[in-house]
Amino acid sequence: MASGGGDNELEVSNKQVIFKDYVSGFPKESDMYLKTNGTIKLKVPEGSNGLLVKNLYLSCDPYMRNRMKKSTDSLVPGSPIVGFGVAKVVDSGNPKFKKGDLVWGSTGWEEYSLITDFQNLIKIEHTDVPLSYYTGILGMPGLTAYGGFYEVCSPKKGEYVFVSAASGAVGQLVGQFAKLLGCYVVGSAGSKEKVDLLKNKLKFDEAFNYKEESDLDAALKRYFPEGIDIYFENVGGKMLDAVLLNMRTHGRIAVCGMISQYNLEKPEGVYNLMHMIYKRVHMKAFVAFDYYHLYPKFLDLVLPHIAEGNIVYLEDIAEGLESGPAALVGLFSGLNVGKQVVLVAQE
Amino acid sequence: MASGGGDNELEVSNKQVIFKDYVSGFPKESDMYLKTNGTIKLKVPEGSNGLLVKNLYLSCDPYMRNRMKKSTDSLVPGSPIVGFGVAKVVDSGNPKFKKGDLVWGSTGWEEYSLITDFQNLIKIEHTDVPLSYYTGILGMPGLTAYGGFYEVCSPKKGEYVFVSAASGAVGQLVGQFAKLLGCYVVGSAGSKEKVDLLKNKLKFDEAFNYKEESDLDAALKRYFPEGIDIYFENVGGKMLDAVLLNMRTHGRIAVCGMISQYNLEKPEGVYNLMHMIYKRVHMKAFVAFDYYHLYPKFLDLVLPHIAEGNIVYLEDIAEGLESGPAALVGLFSGLNVGKQVVLVAQE
Repeated sequence: MASGGGDNELEVSNKQVIFKDYVSGFPKESDMYLKTNGTIKLKVPEGSNGLLVKNLYLSCDPYMRNRMKKSTDSLVPGSPIVGFGVAKVVDSGNPKFKKGDLVWGSTGWEEYSLITDFQNLIKIEHTDVPLSYYTGILGMPGLTAYGGFYEVCSPKKGEYVFVSAASGAVGQLVGQFAKLLGCYVVGSAGSKEKVDLLKNKLKFDEAFNYKEESDLDAALKRYFPEGIDIYFENVGGKMLDAVLLNMRTHGRIAVCGMISQYNLEKPEGVYNLMHMIYKRVHMKAFVAFDYYHLYPKFLDLVLPHIAEGNIVYLEDIAEGLESGPAALVGLFSGLNVGKQVVLVAQE
Repeated sequence: MASGGGDNELEVSNKQVIFKDYVSGFPKESDMYLKTNGTIKLKVPEGSNGLLVKNLYLSCDPYMRNRMKKSTDSLVPGSPIVGFGVAKVVDSGNPKFKKGDLVWGSTGWEEYSLITDFQNLIKIEHTDVPLSYYTGILGMPGLTAYGGFYEVCSPKKGEYVFVSAASGAVGQLVGQFAKLLGCYVVGSAGSKEKVDLLKNKLKFDEAFNYKEESDLDAALKRYFPEGIDIYFENVGGKMLDAVLLNMRTHGRIAVCGMISQYNLEKPEGVYNLMHMIYKRVHMKAFVAFDYYHLYPKFLDLVLPHIAEGNIVYLEDIAEGLESGPAALVGLFSGLNVGKQVVLVAQE
């Protein structure tokens, strides 16, 4: 794409977080590096229908780990990390967006980005909430929780719901949706602090620290003596295996993620799939993209709940683009408490 | 239940196949024994609404292995094996059935049975087909194939369908349903004879002998270079793991059975469930009971196809009640070619 600007156009420095090379095992901060000597013109190249945006918030999401290994959908070594974010339009070559608009969607880990792929780029219409929410409760994780819980699980009042990684970006919302519907909800998390938040702030009926349970099957039997109707799966491996032993007839498992498996050279085996047959279990994997058409309906549901305080949302905000690599890597050891966001710039 | 008959009622000998004790590992013929010294009166006890039936055909089905281990749904040691069968009513205490009616449903492995549980007992209305078909294509396995393929998999013309244990009671029908719909269908089985039948008699597009494939993933890639839309799962374990690597986006897996796992002390691990997320796979376990309400609709579909020769059905009929234990045990080493039936008596 040819640069169309003249010399008089504003060219500014553009710090970037660069993806170094494909990752195996746990990602490390050193798999990324900060590049500080880049510049960018704050203008869309002539003839492009792109958007030049100033990135405000970047989102750290577990799925990003999968793009760090070599595949058809990999991040590009030597280029900035790509992920979800909230940004402000600085210059627009696209009639659907104008300077000053706020958007959320796929962007680069850098101060300014040129966005040319508008698939799933959404203009932000409601700004009476924290803008960072569009990386979480009002963004991809929120739509994930909504689609996964309501569409995949077909929940009914009074059902028994289990959520793993329950204080995370998606889990905390699933649990609150389930409570609002009148379900019994238990969450698992990896620290006492998170368990306390689940019980006291997020209003789960019960919560437990999986790291303190030597026998996950026994833990689940303690919290679900009648069994589990709905499991919202965020972790995989041993937890899934224990859940399968405790599903009720016609139980549903929404497979959102398997964060415990992403960094293993060889994933753990799951041994209890036969219990799917005994209980006629329905297990469906999905991604938020499958439910983008429901985004307006989702906002209609969730915005009033936020305004009325029926739903709260925990965020863990790291300040500055340079804090991005540590924040992203921290997801995989559970350092974040709530949705992990990186604040790049105030609006 | 008190016997209400007088001494002048006909009492006949009643050979039985008795379940000896709970089984671990592969079931053996010696886990059952033939009891030849029993007798039965060919009359329903006074006051009972039961049916006294003469058993004609007994069905050998893989799920029966699960009832041989100790559970809430176990067979009773010292009592006859219980399974599906076709029988003729000799005496009836139930106004819905009369002497001479033919029925299929749950019965005992014996010459005559007193049936008192009418759940899922179905009167046979169409007798212009082999009666043994009501243990297979027109019975529980047929309804399993129908519900699993049409209801669970939502198949579309042109889709890529893989069926494991494809020459078995259920698999052979799934493949034929898929061909009638215009799908591309590949089946796996455990012998050259079965592979030949799949290709030549059952009209599968392709078939392979899984025992001759050292790399199941490579075998599936050979037959499904574009990937698999629908997997009809009958075997579990390594086959499922290989299939998961080859599913297409929004692929569906109907979990009907996992016969490779039923006799293992510890089931095999399944390692590739993360691929469910990459491809948003939908995996649903089911049993025929879930689709009993569709039985009339199923017959409307399948009876004309049988009459016109569009669907054929392979049966492996063992003669005599005493051949039952070997026939049942043979399922788990794949000795049967087609639906395994035991002929107890001609009508």
